[in-house]
Amino acid sequence: MSGEFERIARLRDLFGPLPPPDLGIGDDCAVLHDPRPLVITVDSAVEGVHFDRRWLSPADIAARAVEAAVSDLAAMGAAPGELLLAWSLPRESPDDLVTALAHGVLRVTRRLGMRVAGGNLTASPVLSLTTTALGRAVGPSLRRDGARVGDLLAVTGHPGAAAVGLRALLSPRGDEPTFTDFVNRWRAPAARIAEGLALVGRAHAAIDLSDGLAQDASHLAAASGCALVLDADRLPWLPGQREAARALGFDPVELALHGGEDYELLASGPAGAFDAGWTIIGEVRAGDGVQLRRGGVTAPVEPGGWDHFTNGRGTRG
Amino acid sequence: MSGEFERIARLRDLFGPLPPPDLGIGDDCAVLHDPRPLVITVDSAVEGVHFDRRWLSPADIAARAVEAAVSDLAAMGAAPGELLLAWSLPRESPDDLVTALAHGVLRVTRRLGMRVAGGNLTASPVLSLTTTALGRAVGPSLRRDGARVGDLLAVTGHPGAAAVGLRALLSPRGDEPTFTDFVNRWRAPAARIAEGLALVGRAHAAIDLSDGLAQDASHLAAASGCALVLDADRLPWLPGQREAARALGFDPVELALHGGEDYELLASGPAGAFDAGWTIIGEVRAGDGVQLRRGGVTAPVEPGGWDHFTNGRGTRG
Repeated sequence: MSGEFERIARLRDLFGPLPPPDLGIGDDCAVLHDPRPLVITVDSAVEGVHFDRRWLSPADIAARAVEAAVSDLAAMGAAPGELLLAWSLPRESPDDLVTALAHGVLRVTRRLGMRVAGGNLTASPVLSLTTTALGRAVGPSLRRDGARVGDLLAVTGHPGAAAVGLRALLSPRGDEPTFTDFVNRWRAPAARIAEGLALVGRAHAAIDLSDGLAQDASHLAAASGCALVLDADRLPWLPGQREAARALGFDPVELALHGGEDYELLASGPAGAFDAGWTIIGEVRAGDGVQLRRGGVTAPVEPGGWDHFTNGRGTRG
Repeated sequence: MSGEFERIARLRDLFGPLPPPDLGIGDDCAVLHDPRPLVITVDSAVEGVHFDRRWLSPADIAARAVEAAVSDLAAMGAAPGELLLAWSLPRESPDDLVTALAHGVLRVTRRLGMRVAGGNLTASPVLSLTTTALGRAVGPSLRRDGARVGDLLAVTGHPGAAAVGLRALLSPRGDEPTFTDFVNRWRAPAARIAEGLALVGRAHAAIDLSDGLAQDASHLAAASGCALVLDADRLPWLPGQREAARALGFDPVELALHGGEDYELLASGPAGAFDAGWTIIGEVRAGDGVQLRRGGVTAPVEPGGWDHFTNGRGTRG
């Protein structure tokens, strides 16, 4: 296995330089001249906690790690900018692991027009990818604390679809064609950058769905000091999603609420904030916490999303 | 052990909010409004690779991890700004580990006037601290590629002093008073922010000494396309440093060249660039690589710094 400096040189070739006067890989720091307000987040993906190499190629692992970080930029309504990649690799890793991971990152940077500005390589007992994602504010950022009583709640995509895919992989039936679309949604999420940008100046608050709709909604409710009421009858399902969940022994609504790893967005705002890509699933009321309206009954939902310090699976802070 | 969200809340209390309009811990991203060019780096410290809990308290581990990242800001001549802390903690970690780590970070942020703007907590089989450090350019950044033939080379502090401390800890003699000062230099490095800032507009190039003077000088030589000649007779020693190295069975010059983890600065520039805190140790010539002048003989020095992919100990990319 080649040394750290050869690997860094290879990554510099793959990711390319930054346009002057910016300075990217190859010095002690990157230097970036964008004068707009900086929107920045960091996220880690750890083998055995957030991913399993049985189910994901190295390119998938890296792309997924980056999409998860970039999803936080989407939730703030930021324009995507640069990435810093801090990768910890087991000593026995083959040389082509770094290249394969890099190709996964390139999938995302090409999709979103992002640039790799720097990073760090280190040895570690466990494969771990920490991504710092930088964006720029194009208007007022979509914070968690802006939801107002009377707002509508809307989501992108199909909450719970990724959870169906993960449950299929955890079952003996992961290879069945019925589950292919769901497995792919878990395997290759796509941060909702365009949808987040479209909310700027229109919606009042947003958060991305990493830990499950119930858990993430509870953060929005707590930060905004109000109650979020979700309507089970309005949850947007992919074709076959409910049937696939039931075939695996799960209530599809439970997976939508508690499944996590969708990397969709949940936003709060007036009706006019939401384009065709959004589904209205509830509203904001006075009170606190998250409530579910299902079959005419409205009852509190415990967050119960995945918290890996207590539950043991991957999630994000 | 408490959950991720309680821990994040505790960290938010300890580190405090950012002054408006900036937005720190508690949303999907931090938002920062400083309009100056951004200088940014990321660095990881992994248990068993970069540190060992037998020799460092949790506060020391965290302070050291942050100083190592901030040292890259010093090397570019940047003013220190914000930190993002991505911490991976073993599941069985006691609750007070996060608090103890945070107090180590506070040591650094108070010393340098930095602010914690965000981070991420995750479970992991191994304790690992990844620090994203943000600074701002106050003038032209000190790059690695600016050294010119005829420049003088200068260092801060006492290269090799930290290596004496580490070798003492690795020996049965780590507790002897002779080694206390050296152990402390290894244990609690201090990024040379003021010294880096003082070089802006005066020196031509700089790098921090993380991997050893020879290795780091070789990066500067390669980036600048010239040869760096170091003079063994001009290396600045702490009182007792040479004797301590020899008592442990090492050549003090070898430790200065290859020891690493000093987090001092090496800079290239005209004589007028260097204040009293700097020691001139050589000059820049036409050619390539690093050479050592010792006892009247000038000979190439192999980088031979620590590269943890091939040598197995901690270093940085």
